[in-house]
Amino acid sequence: MQKPTLPKGTRDFGPEQMRKRLFILDTIRQTFQRFGFQPIETPSMENLSTLTGKYGDEGDQLLFKILNSGDFAASLTELDLASGSKKITPKIAEKGLRYDLTVPFARYVVMNRNDLTMPFKRYQMQPVWRADRPQKGRYREFYQCDADVVGTDSLLCEAEIVLMIHEVFRNLTIQDFTVKINNRKILAGIAEVIGVPGQEGTLSVAIDKLDKIGKEKVLDELRGRGFSDDTIAKLEPLFSFDTPDATQVLDQLKTWLSTSDTALQGIAELDETLQFVEQYGLSNIHVEIDPTLARGLSYYTGAIFEVKANGVSIGSVSGGGRYDNLTGAFGMPGLSGVGISFGVDRIYDVMDELNLFPASAGQGTQVLIVPFDTEARAVALPLLSQLRAANIAAEVYPDLAKVKKMMDYANAKNIPFVVLIGSEEVQTGVLALRNMVTGEQHKVTAEELLQRLS
Amino acid sequence: MQKPTLPKGTRDFGPEQMRKRLFILDTIRQTFQRFGFQPIETPSMENLSTLTGKYGDEGDQLLFKILNSGDFAASLTELDLASGSKKITPKIAEKGLRYDLTVPFARYVVMNRNDLTMPFKRYQMQPVWRADRPQKGRYREFYQCDADVVGTDSLLCEAEIVLMIHEVFRNLTIQDFTVKINNRKILAGIAEVIGVPGQEGTLSVAIDKLDKIGKEKVLDELRGRGFSDDTIAKLEPLFSFDTPDATQVLDQLKTWLSTSDTALQGIAELDETLQFVEQYGLSNIHVEIDPTLARGLSYYTGAIFEVKANGVSIGSVSGGGRYDNLTGAFGMPGLSGVGISFGVDRIYDVMDELNLFPASAGQGTQVLIVPFDTEARAVALPLLSQLRAANIAAEVYPDLAKVKKMMDYANAKNIPFVVLIGSEEVQTGVLALRNMVTGEQHKVTAEELLQRLS
Repeated sequence: MQKPTLPKGTRDFGPEQMRKRLFILDTIRQTFQRFGFQPIETPSMENLSTLTGKYGDEGDQLLFKILNSGDFAASLTELDLASGSKKITPKIAEKGLRYDLTVPFARYVVMNRNDLTMPFKRYQMQPVWRADRPQKGRYREFYQCDADVVGTDSLLCEAEIVLMIHEVFRNLTIQDFTVKINNRKILAGIAEVIGVPGQEGTLSVAIDKLDKIGKEKVLDELRGRGFSDDTIAKLEPLFSFDTPDATQVLDQLKTWLSTSDTALQGIAELDETLQFVEQYGLSNIHVEIDPTLARGLSYYTGAIFEVKANGVSIGSVSGGGRYDNLTGAFGMPGLSGVGISFGVDRIYDVMDELNLFPASAGQGTQVLIVPFDTEARAVALPLLSQLRAANIAAEVYPDLAKVKKMMDYANAKNIPFVVLIGSEEVQTGVLALRNMVTGEQHKVTAEELLQRLS
Repeated sequence: MQKPTLPKGTRDFGPEQMRKRLFILDTIRQTFQRFGFQPIETPSMENLSTLTGKYGDEGDQLLFKILNSGDFAASLTELDLASGSKKITPKIAEKGLRYDLTVPFARYVVMNRNDLTMPFKRYQMQPVWRADRPQKGRYREFYQCDADVVGTDSLLCEAEIVLMIHEVFRNLTIQDFTVKINNRKILAGIAEVIGVPGQEGTLSVAIDKLDKIGKEKVLDELRGRGFSDDTIAKLEPLFSFDTPDATQVLDQLKTWLSTSDTALQGIAELDETLQFVEQYGLSNIHVEIDPTLARGLSYYTGAIFEVKANGVSIGSVSGGGRYDNLTGAFGMPGLSGVGISFGVDRIYDVMDELNLFPASAGQGTQVLIVPFDTEARAVALPLLSQLRAANIAAEVYPDLAKVKKMMDYANAKNIPFVVLIGSEEVQTGVLALRNMVTGEQHKVTAEELLQRLS
């Protein structure tokens, strides 16, 4: 008999992990809803025609593909076989697993365009799958929590995203975090000003690594990619933004990039966004402008967001931005939107490292009833009904086992209270309530028990 | 440009459906937890070695298989190609999608056997995938909600399942339902008594269809399967249980099946289970013994459950039973357990047909703020902060659009309240609150607004 195993890069979540994960998911969901985002869900499988070509060549290779049902090989020829796996794939697999939540959302918007009221604010919390090489903190199946608003280019939406990020992290009790914000147009302007217009993509790939490899290596990489010494010298001001003061950063940027209309537009957008944020009148807003923030650029055309948890080894826990052409690939051009994505696994690791999960997030059953014999059980069952009716998670040990065994069960399940029912309790109706944390034991009536645990 | 489509048998869930589905899922989850079941989740993909051979030949064919990453075809030969799809599959696919929650649970128990405290009560709410021919009400991806307790054969667990079913349906406000219960040992006893011992499987396949095709066709089928006229004549008492009175049914069964020790044990188990149920002291318990209930038998060895919603076209919405050998296939024999599975899609259809979803289940944003101009928006944003701080789902229309457009947006999103802010409101600080259902409009202060919507 072979021992069962898990496919590499996948995980089981046991009760304790699950309760903590549910705490995170519930908190994010409630915050999304409070901000007027509406839930949707899309299928785990999409047609490969929907998925391929949307994530670059590397992404296409990381798609999990599903073998067609039935006699999939019937149409395969020896010639196909000789032409290799890549050529065979479309003949035997027409579906793939969701790679992110953005492309399925775009497909959903296009398919439902006539029924959706714009601006459309949706959130989506579902697993995605990537055939990545598994490594620490990187899994082949993981949850994404995305919120996007499409059909408007109002910068108020950027402000809402900034505030919602704050709300999510505060509700999770993560206090020490920074929301970094940048704008694609500023990156484009930098490329213009240093003499490589249109090359903000190449530029961004390098400066995205600033945190990890440092300034000198970033410059080496740019040299390697053909940037001249003159160009690189002009980039110098980019490394001098070391103030968290937004107004000062905006001023510095205006001076440095004054010759680029694109940059000035990006700066104005950032400025307006931050003014909106201020109008909400909330204290303790942690926004910093970071002109080096690029997040691989991908499809971002305006704002770019990233959230960092401070004081922990894990860096980025959330990111997003504005895009101008979400649905273009599906024949519906010009739809602008802005969104944010929260990574549940990374948030979990941050909260675990900082010991932030509230006790209630680990809490399962609140009270175990321990009847010593059949008569005691007849007292236990109606009591169980009462406890549950009062919304108290309660259970009875199902077998008539030794008391020690039942107490061990309570301890192993971290059940904080145990009600012991022996012959004395059956006769008097007074119960023995034991606090499993302190070891204290009190005599209580059923009524007192309900009051105490409610 | 090709129009995007969904893979057949799969569905998108839009905001309204999602909110209703979340209401069902939350209700089931809370009830499971109140009964002391703990959450786990397993990966969507399992090794095919874990899945195959567990669901019969038909099941194996309905597994969705995932194409190996990389150059999967490298090892394929022309000989492989000639030998057909079935032979090729194991060479190019080593993972498959979860087909149900039971096999992954069994795998989880075996892999974590040293860390689990028995009895282990777990619940699991996740999608499963089956490459079934799609048809009305049957999808290729659908949610299952399972609760099982393993590691004890106490019949108190059967009673708990019966009560939990009641609790789930009551919390969903489905009042008119029947929990049917039977026992595999009674079916085995019937087979004995009518002279075909050990053939309760064949017998059950036929009588499972009683509701759909009627008695005469069931008997025809049994004749077709080689049951003699004598045997069939002895089956007659099975069709005479038309009372909901459990005691009477148990008595009738005892008389009919008195020569089968197995049957008598099954009857005693049913009896004890129902006595436990009674001890909980709850009113309005809808349990009926149905000696024809088999649910395809599958791996059930003791109790068999089925829940029917009454007065609707959809029949069974939930089912389960006791099994003696959950983990035997993974090298851990003799683990007994009992479980129940709720079908979210069917419960959704029942609630939709009976119009049972509470208004709150469809409720998204509670109030939309409609500022007429920039000054009004400066008043709107801090108000928005206050509303959200009071846990009220609130949004502001992001663009400065025509009032009618903003009101249309509120109507389309079923937002029940709108706060209008024009120049008068900016000057006086008194807001106009419009009830979008009744059309009434009132002047309120920000404080009154918060009170009214809380």
